[in-house]
Amino acid sequence: MNEKDQLNVIIVGASGYTGAELAAQVERHPYAKLCGLYVSENSQDAHKPISQLYGQLRGVVDLPLTPLAATIDPQTFADIDAVFLATAHSVSHDLAPQFLACGCQVFDLSGAFRVNQADFYPKFYGFEHHHADWLDKAVYGLAEWQAEGVRDAQLIALPGCYPTASLSALKPLQHAGLLTDNCTPVIDATSGVSGAGRKASLTSNFCEVSLNPYGVGVHRHQPEISYHLGREVIFTPHLGSFPRGILATIHVDLKTDVTLADVNQAYQSAYADKPLVRLLEPGIWPAIKAVANTPFVDLNWSLQGHHLIIFSAEDNLLKGASAQAIQCFNIHYGYPSTLALTGDVAC
Amino acid sequence: MNEKDQLNVIIVGASGYTGAELAAQVERHPYAKLCGLYVSENSQDAHKPISQLYGQLRGVVDLPLTPLAATIDPQTFADIDAVFLATAHSVSHDLAPQFLACGCQVFDLSGAFRVNQADFYPKFYGFEHHHADWLDKAVYGLAEWQAEGVRDAQLIALPGCYPTASLSALKPLQHAGLLTDNCTPVIDATSGVSGAGRKASLTSNFCEVSLNPYGVGVHRHQPEISYHLGREVIFTPHLGSFPRGILATIHVDLKTDVTLADVNQAYQSAYADKPLVRLLEPGIWPAIKAVANTPFVDLNWSLQGHHLIIFSAEDNLLKGASAQAIQCFNIHYGYPSTLALTGDVAC
Amino acid sequence: MNEKDQLNVIIVGASGYTGAELAAQVERHPYAKLCGLYVSENSQDAHKPISQLYGQLRGVVDLPLTPLAATIDPQTFADIDAVFLATAHSVSHDLAPQFLACGCQVFDLSGAFRVNQADFYPKFYGFEHHHADWLDKAVYGLAEWQAEGVRDAQLIALPGCYPTASLSALKPLQHAGLLTDNCTPVIDATSGVSGAGRKASLTSNFCEVSLNPYGVGVHRHQPEISYHLGREVIFTPHLGSFPRGILATIHVDLKTDVTLADVNQAYQSAYADKPLVRLLEPGIWPAIKAVANTPFVDLNWSLQGHHLIIFSAEDNLLKGASAQAIQCFNIHYGYPSTLALTGDVAC
Amino acid sequence: MNEKDQLNVIIVGASGYTGAELAAQVERHPYAKLCGLYVSENSQDAHKPISQLYGQLRGVVDLPLTPLAATIDPQTFADIDAVFLATAHSVSHDLAPQFLACGCQVFDLSGAFRVNQADFYPKFYGFEHHHADWLDKAVYGLAEWQAEGVRDAQLIALPGCYPTASLSALKPLQHAGLLTDNCTPVIDATSGVSGAGRKASLTSNFCEVSLNPYGVGVHRHQPEISYHLGREVIFTPHLGSFPRGILATIHVDLKTDVTLADVNQAYQSAYADKPLVRLLEPGIWPAIKAVANTPFVDLNWSLQGHHLIIFSAEDNLLKGASAQAIQCFNIHYGYPSTLALTGDVAC
Repeated sequence: MNEKDQLNVIIVGASGYTGAELAAQVERHPYAKLCGLYVSENSQDAHKPISQLYGQLRGVVDLPLTPLAATIDPQTFADIDAVFLATAHSVSHDLAPQFLACGCQVFDLSGAFRVNQADFYPKFYGFEHHHADWLDKAVYGLAEWQAEGVRDAQLIALPGCYPTASLSALKPLQHAGLLTDNCTPVIDATSGVSGAGRKASLTSNFCEVSLNPYGVGVHRHQPEISYHLGREVIFTPHLGSFPRGILATIHVDLKTDVTLADVNQAYQSAYADKPLVRLLEPGIWPAIKAVANTPFVDLNWSLQGHHLIIFSAEDNLLKGASAQAIQCFNIHYGYPSTLALTGDVAC
Repeated sequence: MNEKDQLNVIIVGASGYTGAELAAQVERHPYAKLCGLYVSENSQDAHKPISQLYGQLRGVVDLPLTPLAATIDPQTFADIDAVFLATAHSVSHDLAPQFLACGCQVFDLSGAFRVNQADFYPKFYGFEHHHADWLDKAVYGLAEWQAEGVRDAQLIALPGCYPTASLSALKPLQHAGLLTDNCTPVIDATSGVSGAGRKASLTSNFCEVSLNPYGVGVHRHQPEISYHLGREVIFTPHLGSFPRGILATIHVDLKTDVTLADVNQAYQSAYADKPLVRLLEPGIWPAIKAVANTPFVDLNWSLQGHHLIIFSAEDNLLKGASAQAIQCFNIHYGYPSTLALTGDVAC
Repeated sequence: MNEKDQLNVIIVGASGYTGAELAAQVERHPYAKLCGLYVSENSQDAHKPISQLYGQLRGVVDLPLTPLAATIDPQTFADIDAVFLATAHSVSHDLAPQFLACGCQVFDLSGAFRVNQADFYPKFYGFEHHHADWLDKAVYGLAEWQAEGVRDAQLIALPGCYPTASLSALKPLQHAGLLTDNCTPVIDATSGVSGAGRKASLTSNFCEVSLNPYGVGVHRHQPEISYHLGREVIFTPHLGSFPRGILATIHVDLKTDVTLADVNQAYQSAYADKPLVRLLEPGIWPAIKAVANTPFVDLNWSLQGHHLIIFSAEDNLLKGASAQAIQCFNIHYGYPSTLALTGDVAC
Repeated sequence: MNEKDQLNVIIVGASGYTGAELAAQVERHPYAKLCGLYVSENSQDAHKPISQLYGQLRGVVDLPLTPLAATIDPQTFADIDAVFLATAHSVSHDLAPQFLACGCQVFDLSGAFRVNQADFYPKFYGFEHHHADWLDKAVYGLAEWQAEGVRDAQLIALPGCYPTASLSALKPLQHAGLLTDNCTPVIDATSGVSGAGRKASLTSNFCEVSLNPYGVGVHRHQPEISYHLGREVIFTPHLGSFPRGILATIHVDLKTDVTLADVNQAYQSAYADKPLVRLLEPGIWPAIKAVANTPFVDLNWSLQGHHLIIFSAEDNLLKGASAQAIQCFNIHYGYPSTLALTGDVAC
């Protein structure tokens, strides 16, 4: 392939679990050239090759982790087409506008541009948002529901891991008008430990990890889900003793005349032509095992009277983060949405 | 201690995970003498010392696993005071009446005598029940709620593991009249793999285990919970990749005038003097880690508007099975309920 | 790509863990066309799509598992170029000659053609070998050491998982003449549970798996290693509580004048141009985490006096099985050895 | 029991994994009264009940963690009979002499008094030892080999976890003179993650833990083992992905005339009357599963020519730490050695 056909791509925040996944995906993308991996200026991993942190990348991606100043030098990034920000929320908030001003396409995996509400950031993220303009222009990259926006926008705000699992399950029902007016979906979701990020932490210590709820009633993915669903939800996250994956068990009340056929139809309409959402056969339930290390979200459901239970599983680091970012990259630039994700190679 | 002060105890079905736990507990009980371990007649473990199956018991309990015929010889058990049945449901159904006829006190850990309804056994357990008399007399050994019955009955039907976790959480609310009339509690519960028993099985294979729902809408613990709660429930079990423990996340709707103080009061009333149910401090959530290898069930709750979420954790093999059986044994014979369970020794 | 440029490939024994890995690898190989997945005639998985067994393959490889008779019909396979046998040892013994007679290239992942010694099969595999001719012609596919043989032979006998880890570590030292004459290498190796295959088995039950030695002094990989190393070894396998991967810790005595530089040189000579063997930097030790789900074997060593400890890690299902088979396929047909393994795409 | 019959006991360093185990063991010891739990002065856990850190202790041991100054006030501990130090090495070095001066019996679980060699502490622990007198008087509490010393000494230095597993396996052979003169035992040992202690650490992060060697050639348990065995050893520790337990696989060369019967006899002589060392039946290999949460060390061996492989398994927190400390407590005060460890109750 001609190098001129490739887009120049960098990843900021490359030392984290999501950043490392992105590095591998960009590396194997036929139309992307991985031009740089960046970490924060004072990172203790600065200058190390990424494969020293992630032995599995040795011989695959050995680029060094370059420290990046809080204020970037536009010259340095003059040839860069696309930037993936796998950075802390407040860091993305500060960096994204700078890269956008350079003319870069930005895929932000943090929460910094996900919810266009004045009081959301002070309340749930602890900082004032100073880029209302970009907040207005950002498109929420829930890829199956925003193809047009993703194609056109310069700033894509990738959804959180829990919101991807939850909204993928709920939006078809909401969209088809199957939920009762006063239905407040109940979402009980369990995430693997990588959701807490790559860091020293007693709660992520091997001997401390267990199965338990956390962030009960206060997790910031609750308002993110509500905002993008257009309806309140009861969201309760749990931590489980496995490295990666999310399983969400979701309960809703259907209008009294809704049948199983209506539910099936709602999901078929939404996802029949969407290869990264898999609707499982009757009796096959979503499982972490079937989605770990894959870019898919798996869905299935059980109707019990007017009560519908939907199960949604994904890899929190992939469909819940980096794979969805690549999916949006593909959609934005007009490639097949699964390129570099499911083994597809360029034709 | 004088041997005459000890009750003669046997365990049937001792090769299973629950049976092995019982063996260790009876062995360390100051007022019980472990007189025999039994397995089914054609068990491939027959005549092996139990410590060959459970290396952790070597030097602690080395009794052999004696095969037991389907029809027992009353003479053999003339001196036996109490029998623990950790057997398959249909086996308990057949054996319990025989031991009861011998005058033994019977603690049945199977489902054979838990639900006193005509069509329950054919529908959920696949066999006709032929001992309606004993079904009438059996007491459901949810120990904190049946102390009197447990004291008096000759046949104690120990609750299932999920029902213990679920009913411990729900009964205080139901009992205090806090639930709306049409509230159907939603129970999302996850169990460790030991819940499937000690057997060769592809679904229990280390490489196949994951986090996923199973038995959706058809698990027989759903009617057991409904029957003993007195109200329909939506119950969805999940399998998790850990050896032991159950965490149940439970959702209910409270009457509009119910306050958090009312909820707290309901739990305090039920459990303030019950040492094996632990009500956690605000902000401390039940976790598998804190209950595994302990006889406790841990509870806590979060009120979100009129929606209450209750978290319940236990060791499925202990409070969900053998420890509750020992607790009932203690109650029945007048010992402290925690004897041989929490390190208490006789005074 | 033109379909005519692709080789027609089938996989026999596709329902096992190794077979499923092969299916994914062949599917993404640009010069291979996956034409069929086969299981034994009486497999209970017959006719199921492979993605029903392996949910992660849904939407990626959904081919059905076709039952294959013990005697194959040559007509059926007239257009097949290459066959991967991920079958039981005795099945490979019977099937390989039939496919070879059809003119197919055969990659056998079983032990049926690995050791060209008369009494090896009765003693270690429990069957008489009836294909001495093919045993003579078969090439042992330890890819880094047999490139020429692999290029030319019609039958490639892929090494076992432990032998690949062990021989990759030991052959450079043996080849360079660094070991004392009477040195008997000591190999302590630990494998994940997938090494036992996909089956219902009490020893593979999640609750039974632990860390312990097994097959002490009698494992058939001991003679396989000795035969291909040309020197006796003490080999002790262990089972660990993880799904995939092997770590071998290996001890040898070096001749008194051998220096660390000599050891380094031996490994550099052997592997400097071999991309699937990674020689780690000083102080970075091989770890299961760094090789799981990768096609690599990682090596490093520590010299303590004249005692050398070599650490070798691989994914037992990949470099220890299917990835090495694809590596041999690539070498045989003249493709880059890492094609379809490390994200390489065709140029 | 009369309170006067109980010894007053405190635990310093009670917030760590070993300290918490000790708390539970002392609590259930019929002749010990748990009088206080201490942590360092600036511990962030100071004043919390221990059951807030270890939910499993709630309702069992709820004592607060009291901060302890570097210089203790003798008055405060005037009534204390015995002190368990589960503290950092340098802290034990400073505290032990102070408690000894108060007349307390001291059980030190750190490495501060294990090896009576001038240059050992600067070299392996990074501090100068200033208490040569106590280093002389301290008895190394490898309980089965030091009963007399343990009975008499005021300061017991409990062995490290790896040394307990290793020395329990090697001392019978050394003692019986079965090893060749120039035999350097090779010890490949794997520990669970709790061996690294309760702390925030990237290497103990659930997602980072794997199976890999560490501390190759430089671990301070190597000289501890050598010193107490009286012979050099090659010791290589590994970290495994499980919470607790150590498995050591040990290789030695036997003198040419040594038979399996001699080996068996050596172990029988050493341990026939030692209930906490279990010699397994032929063909039953030590496993982490069988020793986790037990006070035992399990041993078995395989003779291959003149090469003997010994397998040794223990719980690193129990026989490798707290249970051996209680065992020494029992021996020192004349109680049965297994009291409070194997369910024994006082007669």
